[in-house]
Amino acid sequence: MIVIGEKINATRKSIAEALENRDADTIIATAKSQADAGADYLDVNGGDPHAGKEAENIAWLIELVQSNTDLPVAVDTADADAARQGLELADKKPILNSISLESERLKPLLPVAREHECMVIALLMSDDGPPKAVDDRLASTEQLIGKLTDAGKEVGEILVDPCLFPAASDPDSVRKCLDAVAAIRDKWPEVHISLGFSNVSHGLPKRHNVNLAFLAQAIFMGADAGIVDPTSPGTMATIYAAEALAGRDEFCMNYVTAAREGKLD
Amino acid sequence: MIVIGEKINATRKSIAEALENRDADTIIATAKSQADAGADYLDVNGGDPHAGKEAENIAWLIELVQSNTDLPVAVDTADADAARQGLELADKKPILNSISLESERLKPLLPVAREHECMVIALLMSDDGPPKAVDDRLASTEQLIGKLTDAGKEVGEILVDPCLFPAASDPDSVRKCLDAVAAIRDKWPEVHISLGFSNVSHGLPKRHNVNLAFLAQAIFMGADAGIVDPTSPGTMATIYAAEALAGRDEFCMNYVTAAREGKLD
Repeated sequence: MIVIGEKINATRKSIAEALENRDADTIIATAKSQADAGADYLDVNGGDPHAGKEAENIAWLIELVQSNTDLPVAVDTADADAARQGLELADKKPILNSISLESERLKPLLPVAREHECMVIALLMSDDGPPKAVDDRLASTEQLIGKLTDAGKEVGEILVDPCLFPAASDPDSVRKCLDAVAAIRDKWPEVHISLGFSNVSHGLPKRHNVNLAFLAQAIFMGADAGIVDPTSPGTMATIYAAEALAGRDEFCMNYVTAAREGKLD
Repeated sequence: MIVIGEKINATRKSIAEALENRDADTIIATAKSQADAGADYLDVNGGDPHAGKEAENIAWLIELVQSNTDLPVAVDTADADAARQGLELADKKPILNSISLESERLKPLLPVAREHECMVIALLMSDDGPPKAVDDRLASTEQLIGKLTDAGKEVGEILVDPCLFPAASDPDSVRKCLDAVAAIRDKWPEVHISLGFSNVSHGLPKRHNVNLAFLAQAIFMGADAGIVDPTSPGTMATIYAAEALAGRDEFCMNYVTAAREGKLD
């Protein structure tokens, strides 16, 4: 499982304030706690591109993450200049988060993906809007894999994000999304499938119950990457358990080792 | 979800001792705690038939459960006399736990199932041993549904148990079992599918992580019944969350109501 820590994101109030005040301690603490919890990448989001400081914010965040953890970053932006700057500052192979089939995102960002050695999150949004079923998700996956491999990426450098909607808003949307995960996994065994996991519980009480149950289900259906809060209780333990149950951890050795190392407490 | 509370079982040391000493308080407390936690049925297992007291034990347990809770019982025995006595004592429509295709179990217990108004757990074991894959589970389901409907049961009175093996013993066994769950659900929409959930984590540390992740996965794949410990932290919350995610709780109303009533704490 590729665990992308979600917490350094300017849509969160504490991070917006830390960016505003150039409060390095808050960013460093948020980076270290996610690294200690088991993140493989740290997402860095520098806020609204229209506010004018996004590229500068991302550069500041990446420098702090890289000088205080050993983790690579996921450069989280829809702005080509901010993306380019972020990817160039990365010491270790980063993730570009994200391109999609939406013209205004694809046109500026595909060349950025081409020019840099990076992984790419490919969000299944198009000019027709968000996906609704399994078939349209499969068609968009095929198109995005085509465009990205034409741009020089390997299939294994792509993380398809099938667009998850809140369970409370549409009773069938979770099943459609996870049926699409299974269909994508079946058709492209090498592609990574990533979800913005916490979106599923939007609008519901006691969200952690829904988040952890969904994490277990999505991993079983074929997701192998995700934007999550690894410091949230139960998250890493659920990931280890779900991978063992999904048959991706032979004789549960990773799970048992994680338990022995105190990672499941 | 049909929640069958598993704790009144003579294979547990505290229950064996309570049976030995006719310690009603322990049984009543175990019954009430499971009822309060949200069980729909309480399993009653009176111990080894070869010890000679099984029928008497089951009768004593059923009387205690029925006089201290409003719940129906699941009569858990392989012995026809104990089963017959238990089903006759039941005030509310009980579950017979369980018949299978094993000759020594099927022959004596099928007439008992025929003679009583009850639900029946149909365990997919046969004289060839435990099931190994999806196809043999489908074939055994078809045979058992045939025998039970010939004996007068409705498909909706049958709870198929596809036999779950510990994840630690065979890396692929969980997926085979849950693929069978999905195939059975697809072919017989009205049948219930029940699992002995805690078996999956046998031999692993920090078992609750594995139990809860598996519960979420199995419900998503189509299980709608199970023998569980409803008092174990997270179990009922995971059931509510997983059913909402599986599309079996329109607009998550049961989940939201359970949260409001404090059932997810």
